[in-house]
Amino acid sequence: MLLKEKIMGKFCFGVDIGGTSVKLGMFTLKGELISKWEIPTLPESVLSDVARSIEDRFTDEYQKKDCEGIGIDVPGPVTGDGVVSQCVNMHWGRTDVKSEIEKLTGLKALVANDANAAALGEMWQGGGKGHESLIMVTLGTGVGGGVIIDGKIIAGSNGAAGEIGHICVNPNEEASCNCGKKGCLEQYASATGIVRLAKLEMVEGKNSTILADIDGFSAKDVLDAAKKKDAIGLDVLDKLGWYLAFACAGMAQTVDPEVFVVGGGVSKAGEIIIKAITKYYNEFVMDALKNKEFRLATLGNDAGIYGCAAMIAGKKIG
Amino acid sequence: MLLKEKIMGKFCFGVDIGGTSVKLGMFTLKGELISKWEIPTLPESVLSDVARSIEDRFTDEYQKKDCEGIGIDVPGPVTGDGVVSQCVNMHWGRTDVKSEIEKLTGLKALVANDANAAALGEMWQGGGKGHESLIMVTLGTGVGGGVIIDGKIIAGSNGAAGEIGHICVNPNEEASCNCGKKGCLEQYASATGIVRLAKLEMVEGKNSTILADIDGFSAKDVLDAAKKKDAIGLDVLDKLGWYLAFACAGMAQTVDPEVFVVGGGVSKAGEIIIKAITKYYNEFVMDALKNKEFRLATLGNDAGIYGCAAMIAGKKIG
Repeated sequence: MLLKEKIMGKFCFGVDIGGTSVKLGMFTLKGELISKWEIPTLPESVLSDVARSIEDRFTDEYQKKDCEGIGIDVPGPVTGDGVVSQCVNMHWGRTDVKSEIEKLTGLKALVANDANAAALGEMWQGGGKGHESLIMVTLGTGVGGGVIIDGKIIAGSNGAAGEIGHICVNPNEEASCNCGKKGCLEQYASATGIVRLAKLEMVEGKNSTILADIDGFSAKDVLDAAKKKDAIGLDVLDKLGWYLAFACAGMAQTVDPEVFVVGGGVSKAGEIIIKAITKYYNEFVMDALKNKEFRLATLGNDAGIYGCAAMIAGKKIG
Repeated sequence: MLLKEKIMGKFCFGVDIGGTSVKLGMFTLKGELISKWEIPTLPESVLSDVARSIEDRFTDEYQKKDCEGIGIDVPGPVTGDGVVSQCVNMHWGRTDVKSEIEKLTGLKALVANDANAAALGEMWQGGGKGHESLIMVTLGTGVGGGVIIDGKIIAGSNGAAGEIGHICVNPNEEASCNCGKKGCLEQYASATGIVRLAKLEMVEGKNSTILADIDGFSAKDVLDAAKKKDAIGLDVLDKLGWYLAFACAGMAQTVDPEVFVVGGGVSKAGEIIIKAITKYYNEFVMDALKNKEFRLATLGNDAGIYGCAAMIAGKKIG
């Protein structure tokens, strides 16, 4: 009994470094969130700020000796050894975040890309719970993602695995993506892409739409319009589903995950997004991969801190 | 010294079960082929035939106690736990090949899909040597492949990872693939696909071609024609490169391997295949993934036995 109590007393931290704020969470090794808080992101001091904020959390109840480590994510490419090759938001060049945090805190640290961490978080305690392999598709301002196989993040040799927003899904596209290429998934399935598709259809003028009455309409407005059977809303939703299905099918043929998890702001539209994808997905995969499950993410903005903590908790997951 | 000699004396077997014959190889744990041989494939007795053939190889020099185990591949989907869900060539339903071989031999066994094993073999001692992550693209009668990350095969939840021949690369295709879908990579980049593309161009009749003089021409004839600057040969080679580049780019965005290795009978055409792919690859990937290396496979039909042995030798690779 004493041993069990001691094991249950172990804990870890998940730290999600974003462009404007850092989210921090203290977790049991079983994935229960003990507490969470935020600090502002000051690029020049963010790692020492994180270290200090964590030191402040140690108490008689949660002693440093029982802390198993700190998982951290950053908004940039991270290789498997925890080195950030570049992080534009932080004005960082090549930075060994793992070693720096370990030096500052004396605790074990593991580092991942933010989208990859979110995918691991959703596997641990979110929409992918109960699975060991999944692909997360994050539909936000852009489109990101993460590939988890056997409970581990696939980081990629350049830290660029899971950069699924830049899978080419339309080689005939003439408009350019932010990345400089043409026909990226992000141009159709991100919030920006959804608004872009709606505007293109409005210029074509084949259908009337309630969007015409909304000044500076958003992706949410387009998807709300689809829910109201607005012709342009429905058409954009259909295209979004087709392109996502096409991209997900290619990924399924490559790594055959147990499940896809769809998150990000656009996914707040709910099951209509899942239905739009599964309407086309089976057309593009061989029999063994048909009817793969697509689920909505459930952790929202906390997915990152969960995933970071999961890196530390690892196989101790209850 | 004594310890070193003992370690060097350890060995393992790689067994590649094909539709007509079984290839077997005895390897050092460093990846040196000690001997190889073949036996015919008799579907009803193949596993006991394999066990007997291996028992026959133990001698005073290679004693059973120094055998680390047997890696086996089969031409069908295999999940991570070594269970074959179906193997049409062997008339097998769900078969626990790992347990059966272990029971028959008393040795440790590991099982993989044949294309995945070939990918691991090329990583160990072939075109991908020196790397820990790669995607192999096998251009044969069909198109197969294998995804290796951190030195391990990605098997997939249905054993269907690496089934890259059925990535959809042309949603506008009207002809059907053997799998029942339309627009699969295999319809353009396999030996069959190459002949198909050439015939389609000949029907169009825009270009004259030396292929018109070859009765029942083969994929090799088409690629040889390309080397002689034949208009249709060049055009088919260009299409093959475009579709392979498109598919490889999507895979790179998903798992970011260190290198691609291209094998199979079609790859015997050599560097022109690599050039045809790299001509277009950069168009479809983000900056971090550009200029990824594409190499030719080097192990030919032995890739399978090498990969099977590599599963056993694992991290003992010298």
